[in-house]
Amino acid sequence: MKKILIINTGGTFNKVYNPINGKLEIDKTSSTIQEIATKWLCEFESINIIDKDSLDMTNQDRNILLDTIKNTQHSHIIVIHGTDTMDISASYLAENHLEKYIVFTGAMVPYSIDTVEATANLSSAYGYLQALDSYGIYIAMNGALGNYDKVKKDRKKGVFITL
Amino acid sequence: MKKILIINTGGTFNKVYNPINGKLEIDKTSSTIQEIATKWLCEFESINIIDKDSLDMTNQDRNILLDTIKNTQHSHIIVIHGTDTMDISASYLAENHLEKYIVFTGAMVPYSIDTVEATANLSSAYGYLQALDSYGIYIAMNGALGNYDKVKKDRKKGVFITL
Amino acid sequence: MKKILIINTGGTFNKVYNPINGKLEIDKTSSTIQEIATKWLCEFESINIIDKDSLDMTNQDRNILLDTIKNTQHSHIIVIHGTDTMDISASYLAENHLEKYIVFTGAMVPYSIDTVEATANLSSAYGYLQALDSYGIYIAMNGALGNYDKVKKDRKKGVFITL
Amino acid sequence: MKKILIINTGGTFNKVYNPINGKLEIDKTSSTIQEIATKWLCEFESINIIDKDSLDMTNQDRNILLDTIKNTQHSHIIVIHGTDTMDISASYLAENHLEKYIVFTGAMVPYSIDTVEATANLSSAYGYLQALDSYGIYIAMNGALGNYDKVKKDRKKGVFITL
Repeated sequence: MKKILIINTGGTFNKVYNPINGKLEIDKTSSTIQEIATKWLCEFESINIIDKDSLDMTNQDRNILLDTIKNTQHSHIIVIHGTDTMDISASYLAENHLEKYIVFTGAMVPYSIDTVEATANLSSAYGYLQALDSYGIYIAMNGALGNYDKVKKDRKKGVFITL
Repeated sequence: MKKILIINTGGTFNKVYNPINGKLEIDKTSSTIQEIATKWLCEFESINIIDKDSLDMTNQDRNILLDTIKNTQHSHIIVIHGTDTMDISASYLAENHLEKYIVFTGAMVPYSIDTVEATANLSSAYGYLQALDSYGIYIAMNGALGNYDKVKKDRKKGVFITL
Repeated sequence: MKKILIINTGGTFNKVYNPINGKLEIDKTSSTIQEIATKWLCEFESINIIDKDSLDMTNQDRNILLDTIKNTQHSHIIVIHGTDTMDISASYLAENHLEKYIVFTGAMVPYSIDTVEATANLSSAYGYLQALDSYGIYIAMNGALGNYDKVKKDRKKGVFITL
Repeated sequence: MKKILIINTGGTFNKVYNPINGKLEIDKTSSTIQEIATKWLCEFESINIIDKDSLDMTNQDRNILLDTIKNTQHSHIIVIHGTDTMDISASYLAENHLEKYIVFTGAMVPYSIDTVEATANLSSAYGYLQALDSYGIYIAMNGALGNYDKVKKDRKKGVFITL
């Protein structure tokens, strides 16, 4: 078994309903990740950084992500990220030729609204990482898993597909 | 992407509540698998055989499972199985030196009672299969993934662990 | 048993997540009401009008609600309404001295995010109506039930209380 | 607002899954009742007695229920009870001409499997009690509310109906 670090950058995956203002907001703790771990009957190591929606991500944020990855001793990493710019952040990391196994994932529907997609995306990324044998940047979304430049969001259908 | 066949043999994963007799019964359709696929925004190919609780599985049933695997053209297969004898069925298949990638999974809690564990087990098996590069019989349960003889059920704690 | 009509005017009660734009939107069908009826193992008669958020309700909308109530033969009516202006609409109806039993209800959290509060509000309104014996305009929210001018939203806490 | 006491005697309403033995068991705490209260954004006063399945209820148990009701100062009471003998216990209490308002409720499906029916039954009983103005023993199940001898379980359909 490979030890995996989950780096949670925010996005739809983590959104929860705020009944006072009626809006969905990013939960800046790792409560969703920890709830999945508890119910899955296992343990995760995770950290929260950035805590932003995909569309608000800047290259400065991507640099924070890059530094976090460079500074950790973990070689097997899941990055939870908003779906709209997941490919941009993945591409940004790819330019740096990291000798690590990195899988991006996230959700089209918040875990707090429907548990299944977020859980399945995270768990498929987890299973994928356990068997991967080439360094690289990958995406695992909606059952489509592969190198980051082979998995794309179909914005009209609201789902990721393999090219 | 590898095309995966899900062979559903029954077990806790599929149990649903029957309000007339107050008991949990194995749903003999693949409704749970198809619901996960719909919510995960992807598609699964699946078949139902045996439809039994783990403790009722006989070697005759295991032979049906073996024949089903031999007769399918798929080389990447997920077997959904009750947890108590998952290791026995896995071991039974292993004696046959199949040139296939086979991952057993299931659930300690029915999907109909709590969606997360069943979804996570199935999805981690799915992700694992996408990256596996050696034929073999594997188990993916509760975040513990590996060769079938390295992942065991801890009956007291009600969770699978790696040896 | 009194026959009850549910008039659904919109509000948080009915909101569902749109994964394409990432926003919560009012479902203009009565799908939530019908899902509660199916799971509660009973039947509801319901109609949808206005389909607005509480804050977008105008007196023109309140007139539509008034006309709908005047024109129906039902004397026992549940009005599902957004919570922020529920008291204004209730007060508007009260000026008209209708010889009907009318209970306003709604939700602080959409049924699609958590089923319990919306279900409990609607069901308590339903039970209340079965036993009420004075014409009037009532509110049933968060276990606080009473004449419309005795039940208020505490905006800071995000909950209704009795005065 | 009338102050209500919830007396929880067990039954399907409270059943939870035990993953070690794979069975549904009655939770002898009031965790379901308290979870509904928390999510409904209100508070309940409740006590647990007997903690049995409907079919295991004896007249000795019914006597415990009767004594509990006689000894409490509350006049407005919800009794959560298994569905198969709810009418027998209600009838047993009715013979005692209590000067109280008592509504029996329960569930065909455990709250832990699907929250809606259990929540709706309890909340409709709660709303009904707030408006009732005659002493008596009542049943509130599946949207059928009325005097205990006017609401019956249809065992084939698994639902309560009014006569």
